[in-house]
Amino acid sequence: MTQDQHESHAQHETGGAPTGSVRGDEDVDLTVLAARAGIAAQHVVPYGRQVAKIDLAALAPGAAAGEDPARYVVVTAMTPTAFGEGKTTVAIGLAQGLAARGERCALTLRQSAMGPTFGIKGGAGGSGLARVVPAERMNLHLTGDVHAVTAAHNLLSAVLDNHLHHGNALGIDERTITWPRVLDVNDRALRHVVVGLGSRSDGVTRQASFDITPASEVMVIMSLATSLADLRARLGRIVVARDVEGRWVSAEDLGAAGAMTAVLRDALEPNLLRTAEGTPVLVHTGPFGNIATGCSSVIADRVAARGLAGTETLPAGYVLTEAGFGADMGLERFFDIKCAVSGMRPRAAVLVVTVRALKAHSGRYRVVGGKDLPAQMLEENLEDVRAGAANMLKHLAIVRGFGMEPVVAVNVFPTDHPSEVAEVARIARGAGARVAPVRPVTEGGRGCVELADAVIEACEQEEPGGAGAGRLYAAEDDLRTKIAKVAAMYGAQGVDYSPSAARFLEDCERDGFGHLAVVVAKTPLSLSHDPALTGAPTGWRLPVREVRLAAGAGYVYAVCGSVSTMPGLPSHPAAERIDVDPSTGEIIGLR
Amino acid sequence: MTQDQHESHAQHETGGAPTGSVRGDEDVDLTVLAARAGIAAQHVVPYGRQVAKIDLAALAPGAAAGEDPARYVVVTAMTPTAFGEGKTTVAIGLAQGLAARGERCALTLRQSAMGPTFGIKGGAGGSGLARVVPAERMNLHLTGDVHAVTAAHNLLSAVLDNHLHHGNALGIDERTITWPRVLDVNDRALRHVVVGLGSRSDGVTRQASFDITPASEVMVIMSLATSLADLRARLGRIVVARDVEGRWVSAEDLGAAGAMTAVLRDALEPNLLRTAEGTPVLVHTGPFGNIATGCSSVIADRVAARGLAGTETLPAGYVLTEAGFGADMGLERFFDIKCAVSGMRPRAAVLVVTVRALKAHSGRYRVVGGKDLPAQMLEENLEDVRAGAANMLKHLAIVRGFGMEPVVAVNVFPTDHPSEVAEVARIARGAGARVAPVRPVTEGGRGCVELADAVIEACEQEEPGGAGAGRLYAAEDDLRTKIAKVAAMYGAQGVDYSPSAARFLEDCERDGFGHLAVVVAKTPLSLSHDPALTGAPTGWRLPVREVRLAAGAGYVYAVCGSVSTMPGLPSHPAAERIDVDPSTGEIIGLR
Repeated sequence: MTQDQHESHAQHETGGAPTGSVRGDEDVDLTVLAARAGIAAQHVVPYGRQVAKIDLAALAPGAAAGEDPARYVVVTAMTPTAFGEGKTTVAIGLAQGLAARGERCALTLRQSAMGPTFGIKGGAGGSGLARVVPAERMNLHLTGDVHAVTAAHNLLSAVLDNHLHHGNALGIDERTITWPRVLDVNDRALRHVVVGLGSRSDGVTRQASFDITPASEVMVIMSLATSLADLRARLGRIVVARDVEGRWVSAEDLGAAGAMTAVLRDALEPNLLRTAEGTPVLVHTGPFGNIATGCSSVIADRVAARGLAGTETLPAGYVLTEAGFGADMGLERFFDIKCAVSGMRPRAAVLVVTVRALKAHSGRYRVVGGKDLPAQMLEENLEDVRAGAANMLKHLAIVRGFGMEPVVAVNVFPTDHPSEVAEVARIARGAGARVAPVRPVTEGGRGCVELADAVIEACEQEEPGGAGAGRLYAAEDDLRTKIAKVAAMYGAQGVDYSPSAARFLEDCERDGFGHLAVVVAKTPLSLSHDPALTGAPTGWRLPVREVRLAAGAGYVYAVCGSVSTMPGLPSHPAAERIDVDPSTGEIIGLR
Repeated sequence: MTQDQHESHAQHETGGAPTGSVRGDEDVDLTVLAARAGIAAQHVVPYGRQVAKIDLAALAPGAAAGEDPARYVVVTAMTPTAFGEGKTTVAIGLAQGLAARGERCALTLRQSAMGPTFGIKGGAGGSGLARVVPAERMNLHLTGDVHAVTAAHNLLSAVLDNHLHHGNALGIDERTITWPRVLDVNDRALRHVVVGLGSRSDGVTRQASFDITPASEVMVIMSLATSLADLRARLGRIVVARDVEGRWVSAEDLGAAGAMTAVLRDALEPNLLRTAEGTPVLVHTGPFGNIATGCSSVIADRVAARGLAGTETLPAGYVLTEAGFGADMGLERFFDIKCAVSGMRPRAAVLVVTVRALKAHSGRYRVVGGKDLPAQMLEENLEDVRAGAANMLKHLAIVRGFGMEPVVAVNVFPTDHPSEVAEVARIARGAGARVAPVRPVTEGGRGCVELADAVIEACEQEEPGGAGAGRLYAAEDDLRTKIAKVAAMYGAQGVDYSPSAARFLEDCERDGFGHLAVVVAKTPLSLSHDPALTGAPTGWRLPVREVRLAAGAGYVYAVCGSVSTMPGLPSHPAAERIDVDPSTGEIIGLR
C-alpha cells in the first residue's frame, strides 16, 4: 500500500475530514472533567497530565431510591464495509451533540490495542472534530491496562507450562491445551509456534500459539467483571485444558488466579479521557468483536450511570456506549451478555449507516480494506442505495427484536451526494425509524445536534429495552438452542455442526456449562458467515466448525469460518512513518 | 521448595527482619516528596496516588556556574551469595540515614521486573524498615515502563519477521538474526521456540527465542539515553542481523526506530517513589546485571543531581545510586559505561559486605539459592570469616582501582555473632577503609547513621573518582585489549576466545565497532567465570565462548560460561500465594 492509499484509507474510514485540526493537548482540569460525568473529585486519580483513573469507590453505594436513572444509549451499526462506517466517530459526535444541547453526558468506549496502531490503522478513537483526546495516550499504552491483561494472561501460560515441566501433577493432556499466549503486537509469525525446545531444563516441547491481547479471555473477563471479587472468581473459572480423564483444568486448579487478580487490580479502574470538545469519555477494556463481546466494560458504564443519575437538583444525564461491528454481532452480545451481567437497560439504540455501506450492500462492488474504493461507487446512484437498503432494514428489525425503537444516524461523508443521503433517510423513515444525518468529523458536536434531539426524544417516549423479552435466549435454553436462536436472528435457515463441534457442545452440557451464554464468531462483513454475501442474505445455513469454552467470561463461542486472532503487518506498516519530534517530544504519524 | 524454605529464603536475602511492619500506603503529597529531591512542582506528574513521573524539563538548564555539585555516591558489594547481601536494602537505609542526619538526599534504583515477583522472589525493593513504597507499585507495573520496553522491543521483532515475510528486500540472512522477542514473565518454555509455522500467510519459519524484558537491549538503551534524541539515535543503531553479504542490518534499516521511540517516549521519564521513611527514590529502568550494565538510568541520576546541587541558600545534597552485583561487575560498568555517558563522577563508593558472604568465600560451604543455609554456617567461626576475607579485600582493591577510597558497610543480620562482625570490620579497617556496621532492615535509617557519617566524611575528604585514570580502559583500546583489562581486574591470567568469538571481534573491529565499550557476561557469584571458585581466585583464564553486539547500547558483550536470559518458575512459584483481598483491595503475598 502506498502512502497515498494509506491516507485515502484513513479518510474512507472516518468520513473524509482533514485530521489534526484539534490537538486537544492542552492541560485539563481532570476533576472538572470528572464532575461533568457526576464523578466526585475524591475518586479521580490522575495518571499523567490528561488522563485519570476512577477508583471503584465511585460505584458505591448504588443509586438511591427515587433517583431518576441515567439514560443509557447504545450505538450500533448496519453491517460495515472493511473500512468501518464511523460508529465510534458518531458516538463521540453524539456525546458532543448532547453536551451542545446542554445535557449532562458521558461516553464509554473500548480501549484500542496498540499493536494495530503500527499496522494499517495508524490510530483509533475517532477522527477530525469528533475524537478522543489525548490521542497519543488513547493509542499508546493509555494507563497500561492492556499490558496488565497481557501480563496476567501470560502468567497463567507460564504457570501452565511450568506445571507440565515439574511433573504434571494434574495429569494435563498436552494435546487439549487451549490457552495461548498473547502479545499486543501484529505479529503473524507468532500465530503458530513450537515452545519448549532446547534442553531438558527448557520446558516441555509442544505446539502453541499467540493471539493479540484483545482476543484474550482475560480481556473480556475484565470487561464483564462487576467487582474485584467477581474478577477473582471469573479468573479462577478459566479453563485451560483437560486432563487425561477428560476433566476440565482451570486457572484455580493451577493456583494462578490470585496472582492474576493482583496483576489486574488497578486495571479494573476505568480511564477518564475526553472528546475534542471536552465531553467525558470513560475508556476501559477492549475485548475483540469476533470471538468476544466487542463491548467496553460493565464497570465503566456503571460508574457513568451512577454519576449521571438524576438528583433533586440535576436532571438525569446520558450514558452513551458502543457495541462492536453490526447490530447482529456487538448489539446481540451487548444485550445477551453485557446487559445480562450489568442489569442495565438502554433507553435508545442508535444505528449508524452510511451511503457507502448501503451501496456496498447492493452487491455490485468489490470493496477491499486498505485499497481505494471503486471509483464508480462514488458516482451518484440511487439505485445502488435502494439495492443495498435490505441490510439496513434487517438491522432495524434486529434492533426492534431487542425491544428498542432504533434511531438511524446517517454518517454523511463529503463524497456523498445529497440525493443519496436523502434516499437513505427516506427508506429508514419509511421503516418507522427516527432518522438524523450526522457530520461528526467535519462539524463535531454541532454536526450531531439533530441526532442528539432524536435520541432525547426516543429516551423520553420509548420504554427501555433489553430486559426479559429483550433477550434473544434464556439461560435455561441449551447451548444448541441458543446458537440456533442467534443464527435465526442472522437470517440463517439452520445450523450445521462439525462432528468435533457437536461433541464439544455435548461435553459442555454434560459438565455443567449448559447455562452459559453463546458467542457466534463470524465475519463482521456480512449478516452471514460468508463475507461475500451482501445485503440481507437468505437461504443459507450457519456452519459451526469448532466450539470453544470461555468459562471465565461465561460463554462458549462457536467458530464459523476463519477468524483471525493475531493480525499481521502490511508490507509498509504505519510503524515506518510514526516517529517522535525530539525537539518537542510530539509523536508524529499517528492518524 | 516448601513454603518454609521460601520464607527462610526471603529472610536470608534481606537480613532477617519481619516484613510488613511498614505499609507506607497512606496518601503522600508528591510535590512535597519531590521538593526533598530539589525537584520543582511543575515537573511532578502524578501517575496514581503515590507515584509520579518527573518530566524531562527538570533536566534543563544544566547546573548554573558556581553551583556546588550534588555529592554522587555509588553503592556496590563484594561477590554476593545466591541470596544477595542486601545491597539495595543498605542503599535505602543509607538514604534514610543521611536524611536522619539532616542531609538532602535522593536515591536512584533500578525498576525490578514483574516476572520474578511470581517466581522465587515474591518481591523486591528492600525489606523491613528499609524498603521502597508503595511496594505494590514497585513490584507490579509501576508506571508501565517495563511494559513499554517489551512493546518497543517486540515491535522491532514483528517488523523484522514482517520484512522476511514480504520478500526480504534487505537480503537478511535468517541464520544471523540475533534479535529475540521479550516478555516480562519467567517462562522457560519460551527460551527456544520455532515461529512462523502454519500456512504461507503465517510468516517465515525459523528458530527464535524469548528473553525476559530486563535482558532487552532496549532496556539498557533506556538506561543510558541522555535525551529523546539520543534515545532515537541509539534505537536506530540496534543491530538485529546481517545480510547475505555479511553487512549489519539495523533497526533504522527496518524503519522501526521512530515508532519504537514513540512507544518509549513517556517511559524515559523517571518515577518518583519514596523510602519507608519518606526519602525520595527515583526508580527508572532495569537492565540486567549479567549481559547489560546492571545500573539504573543516567536520566534519573541527572535529575537528582540537578535537584540536589548546592545553591546560595541550600548546601549540596546526596545522590545515591546502586550498581548491580559485585564491584567486579556492576561497578566496573558503572564507571566504564554509565559514567562515561553521563559525565558524572562519584565522590564516595560504599562496598556492602556480610558475615555470611565472607564465610561463604571461605570455600568451606555449599550455598544454594532457594535452599536453607548450611546450619554450620550460622555458628560462630572467626576462622571462616578470615578465610573468606580475600574476596572483600579484592573488591576494596577494585574500588580503589577506579580512584575511589571505599566505605565498607557491614550489613549485620540478627543471626550474626558480634565477634564476627567485629572481625570483618577489623580486617576492612586494616586495609585502610572506612567501616560502619548497618542494620537497615531492623532499624531503618537509625541503623545506618554511622554509615551516613562515614559517607559524609568520605565526600568531604576524598576527590571524586571515575574520570580519566578512573576508567579501566580507553575508547581507543581495541576490543580484545578492553576485555583483557577487565579480565585482569577480575584476577584472570589471560583470556581464551572460541574461534567464533575471535572472528566476531575481528568483524566488529573491521566494521567500525572497535570504539565500543565491553561487557563481560559471567556469573556474579565468583570473581571468575566459575561460580564454584570462591574468595579471590588466581591462576585461571577467562574463556569467552561467544561475543554479541549491542550497538545501540554502545558495547559488545563477551559471554563467559552459561548466562540465562529467561528464568523459569520453581515447582511452587510465589504466584501460588499472591492474591488480592477483595474486601480491601490489598495485595497479599508480596514479600
